Amino acid sequence: MDYGMYFFEHVTPYETLVRRMERVIASGKTPFQDYFLFESKGFGKVLILDKDVQSTERDEYIYHETLVHPAMLTHPEPKRVLIVGGGEGATLREVLKHPTVEKAVMVDIDGELVEVAKRHMPEWHQGAFDDPRAVLVIDDARAYLERTEERYDVVIIDLTDPVGEDNPARLLYTVEFYRLVKAHLNPGGVMGMQAGMILLTHHRVHPVVHRTVREAFRYVRSYKNHIPGFFLNFGFLLASDAFDPAAFSEGVIEARIRERNLALRHLTAPYLEAMFVLPKDLLEALEKETMVSTDQNPFYVTPEGEARQAPYKG
Amino acid sequence: MDYGMYFFEHVTPYETLVRRMERVIASGKTPFQDYFLFESKGFGKVLILDKDVQSTERDEYIYHETLVHPAMLTHPEPKRVLIVGGGEGATLREVLKHPTVEKAVMVDIDGELVEVAKRHMPEWHQGAFDDPRAVLVIDDARAYLERTEERYDVVIIDLTDPVGEDNPARLLYTVEFYRLVKAHLNPGGVMGMQAGMILLTHHRVHPVVHRTVREAFRYVRSYKNHIPGFFLNFGFLLASDAFDPAAFSEGVIEARIRERNLALRHLTAPYLEAMFVLPKDLLEALEKETMVSTDQNPFYVTPEGEARQAPYKG
Amino acid sequence: MDYGMYFFEHVTPYETLVRRMERVIASGKTPFQDYFLFESKGFGKVLILDKDVQSTERDEYIYHETLVHPAMLTHPEPKRVLIVGGGEGATLREVLKHPTVEKAVMVDIDGELVEVAKRHMPEWHQGAFDDPRAVLVIDDARAYLERTEERYDVVIIDLTDPVGEDNPARLLYTVEFYRLVKAHLNPGGVMGMQAGMILLTHHRVHPVVHRTVREAFRYVRSYKNHIPGFFLNFGFLLASDAFDPAAFSEGVIEARIRERNLALRHLTAPYLEAMFVLPKDLLEALEKETMVSTDQNPFYVTPEGEARQAPYKG
Amino acid sequence: MDYGMYFFEHVTPYETLVRRMERVIASGKTPFQDYFLFESKGFGKVLILDKDVQSTERDEYIYHETLVHPAMLTHPEPKRVLIVGGGEGATLREVLKHPTVEKAVMVDIDGELVEVAKRHMPEWHQGAFDDPRAVLVIDDARAYLERTEERYDVVIIDLTDPVGEDNPARLLYTVEFYRLVKAHLNPGGVMGMQAGMILLTHHRVHPVVHRTVREAFRYVRSYKNHIPGFFLNFGFLLASDAFDPAAFSEGVIEARIRERNLALRHLTAPYLEAMFVLPKDLLEALEKETMVSTDQNPFYVTPEGEARQAPYKG
Repeated sequence: MDYGMYFFEHVTPYETLVRRMERVIASGKTPFQDYFLFESKGFGKVLILDKDVQSTERDEYIYHETLVHPAMLTHPEPKRVLIVGGGEGATLREVLKHPTVEKAVMVDIDGELVEVAKRHMPEWHQGAFDDPRAVLVIDDARAYLERTEERYDVVIIDLTDPVGEDNPARLLYTVEFYRLVKAHLNPGGVMGMQAGMILLTHHRVHPVVHRTVREAFRYVRSYKNHIPGFFLNFGFLLASDAFDPAAFSEGVIEARIRERNLALRHLTAPYLEAMFVLPKDLLEALEKETMVSTDQNPFYVTPEGEARQAPYKG
Repeated sequence: MDYGMYFFEHVTPYETLVRRMERVIASGKTPFQDYFLFESKGFGKVLILDKDVQSTERDEYIYHETLVHPAMLTHPEPKRVLIVGGGEGATLREVLKHPTVEKAVMVDIDGELVEVAKRHMPEWHQGAFDDPRAVLVIDDARAYLERTEERYDVVIIDLTDPVGEDNPARLLYTVEFYRLVKAHLNPGGVMGMQAGMILLTHHRVHPVVHRTVREAFRYVRSYKNHIPGFFLNFGFLLASDAFDPAAFSEGVIEARIRERNLALRHLTAPYLEAMFVLPKDLLEALEKETMVSTDQNPFYVTPEGEARQAPYKG
Repeated sequence: MDYGMYFFEHVTPYETLVRRMERVIASGKTPFQDYFLFESKGFGKVLILDKDVQSTERDEYIYHETLVHPAMLTHPEPKRVLIVGGGEGATLREVLKHPTVEKAVMVDIDGELVEVAKRHMPEWHQGAFDDPRAVLVIDDARAYLERTEERYDVVIIDLTDPVGEDNPARLLYTVEFYRLVKAHLNPGGVMGMQAGMILLTHHRVHPVVHRTVREAFRYVRSYKNHIPGFFLNFGFLLASDAFDPAAFSEGVIEARIRERNLALRHLTAPYLEAMFVLPKDLLEALEKETMVSTDQNPFYVTPEGEARQAPYKG
Repeated sequence: MDYGMYFFEHVTPYETLVRRMERVIASGKTPFQDYFLFESKGFGKVLILDKDVQSTERDEYIYHETLVHPAMLTHPEPKRVLIVGGGEGATLREVLKHPTVEKAVMVDIDGELVEVAKRHMPEWHQGAFDDPRAVLVIDDARAYLERTEERYDVVIIDLTDPVGEDNPARLLYTVEFYRLVKAHLNPGGVMGMQAGMILLTHHRVHPVVHRTVREAFRYVRSYKNHIPGFFLNFGFLLASDAFDPAAFSEGVIEARIRERNLALRHLTAPYLEAMFVLPKDLLEALEKETMVSTDQNPFYVTPEGEARQAPYKG
């Protein structure tokens, strides 16, 4: 490690990733979070929100394809899509790749961060915000859902993890919130979400989210992928009342990719299916999990990766 | 990061993992490598050889199950097994779990390191070195293979990556070496190996190994898994002249796990199969790779992750 | 910074010194503190107690000569000497260099640490513990002084700084403690002490100690020296009721060094004198300081270097 | 150490100072050096050139008073002053505090860096560049001196250390360069200079500079001070053919400070004098030094702090 500028990210309480910064593009503090955007040699631009890397220029396609397309492809004809969070605009970009989409609403609480992304992160949004089908709402996702009567075919949840007892995102990880999402799904609708890192010493993040979503939806399926720029395996999930998302056949997915003319760089139909096959230790952790996060007793993750429940005192 | 002792591991040339050390159990220098063994809170004991983490107490089962069982399970009745490298003894331990095994020879060049493992790492070997079926040979694997007339049903290669132009392991990554291994396989035999990290900025490590093995064997299949303690995805491969290792049916694997009464913590038959399904970007990297590592022009990996070829000047 | 083992020491809350460890010689936890002893290339062995470097093999002579000889040389004939703290034995070693000394009592609370020093740090004590004039007492210095009726010509205080509200050393930094020391001085006696780092952002440590000692003694003189292995300037002071320690003439000191045949590596009579000349900003900080640390309201230093007073709840 | 941005500065080859950056104000690369300017909590703005901290907002007054006033005060009436280097403008600011000064020429090779300082570092220059007595020349100092016929009463040399064999500053550390400086001194003139860190493991930097200057000037006197923001002791020196700079009486300095109405924050006349009193180990290192840096065989400092001589291949 030569002299110069570095970013410290605490991947676990005991392991820290030190990333060399070639250049700091922007850094600051919105009303909701600290942000840092810098140039790195290995990953291009790197966006950090609060304590954790959010995405990197060179591998964001892996994260965003993994987040978006399983939900979009298990739905036969997603026309109206809601994105909860997703400030950089790349989730929106991937959603809009599906020609079936007529309207994509993105609700993010942090308008200032969205401006940073618009100005400094064109590699992410690639003009998606200007697509006539895109609607950007700057608001708390929960408040938005309580207000709107709109219904969606697909809802994509792209939030940061509820790390820390004072994290306001905790109320977006409760049964009540997932029921609110479900109430805004059209018949046959599906919810896809980023569902926490999967790490030996942090195993309960994903299991608790999975267990909680299960309270709200009939069918819940976890899947995972390795995100290089995070240096971690990440968990995702699909939830639906209409059908079991794991029951899709590879042939159907293959056909939809072709029909919708999707240009994918990471996913294939077989790989999409394989992501849903989980190793034994993770399956066991999912099975034995009993914690359900509720509005009254929402869960949060300690820096040590433990899941705890306590009332949220905004 | 509190005051105290830390270990710096350069995961890439631009990203360094800083691991908190609770206690240093042993550190030193054998004729072949530096070693560090320390206690960490998240992963238990951590073994570092030269620059890179080798395995950690708490997740070594993931690495060793992933390395050993695909090869052992695709073979109908592995009786004689050769392990190249594998100093800690956990590869040996996993091999010996198969009741079909009559003799397991482990050849490691670094006798001093094996002694460190025997004394300080019982969680890894769990007495495997004392199994009457185990034979430990302290020697250069290549010299051993050139000398011996023994034939094996399965050969497991568990070496460190050939990072650096002066790395003597380079001569264990050539077509000639793989042919030498093949020459010591019984009919129907299979080779399994650790085959390099899979990382955006280091993509060519695994592709070059894959491409090179393909010169020596009729059937070569890559697979991958995330190793939490490495904070990376790692590549592995199976090679055989007798059969396509990816053509096994899930049912057969399932049956063999049951018949051999294997106690596995991470692998299941479906997950084992899913590890062989690779994402599009990696498939493309494998396809377009043309570099073949030879004795005359063995490849090595630069710290930047580039693959280069140059004669080895021991 | 190559791969390997490092020690993190937080020199300030915003600046951390990362020291490369070639080898960890010993580390552990006594009932009173964490200790780390390691080999470094630049400074030889380095001893860390809790959060801070205590001394290093290659420059400990600078620290210990600076701490011990001003007090010993301003006294015309130091026969009986008390050392408060000083676990490594080098303070004792320097005291015993004065042939006038008949008895040197060292009181350190941490017997386990003294054992570590005896076994692993011979470069420090150089056999001082075996000198027939040396008496080692393992006890709390305050309890010892309350118990003993002995009187001393010189008392050397060699303690760690009272960083942190729960630091038991706080009660060894109060007016009452300094009065207790004074009560054990023979007529004409002098107290010398390590009195905290002198750093822009930590200015109040030394001023508060200075101001507090002034409550107990008629004459108090601060001096300072740069300790390379600490990467800091450190403050020291002499206190006496009998004479002004800054009033010594260079000639007298020169003569005493010669008479006592002192082999010094860092100090000379002129340099000893020059250490008492302080820069303007430090003089102003000493003058304007008003905080007096008392048993009822002992001071402590926050990690930010602020001095605060609060009752000590052992 | 919380998550966030840090700067790594290698104080020695084995010790690295990690400084927390609150905000990066500017960073870039001029034709001559890398620069980083950031905000820190403990020291305010911090300027790094290439590998090392250059000065910090909160303690630059210590460095610049130490560099400038000994030379200026030992001269009875400095009217014309030359500054070699000194990009930030604070050396110029201190020089201009002396009302005797009629013209102060600052020659710095790096015009781009001077622009950065003008725009982002007003706390340093405080408008000094706009003083009608100030003349800024962007040029190599050696070329400038070879060209000009001007003579000066005081020359202040404020350069970075010649670390690294390819460092162009090496030719500003030779006997020939010092003779060139001398040739531009008026009768009775004096040269003052920053003369390298003084550190146990880097002892030869200052001794070699001292020894080399001694070849060019009749009287050479080293002095030192601790620079908090560098976490090091730094060496300086005065050189003159006219008089011994260490022979000034405290009273004369005191009187000149008063007459010139100098507002000093760190220096006093006694402290100025005390800085010239060196400890025994440093005196011995100066005495035994034999290396003389010449144009044919200029010295440089290795990262390990060793002094070496070799022809410079620009």
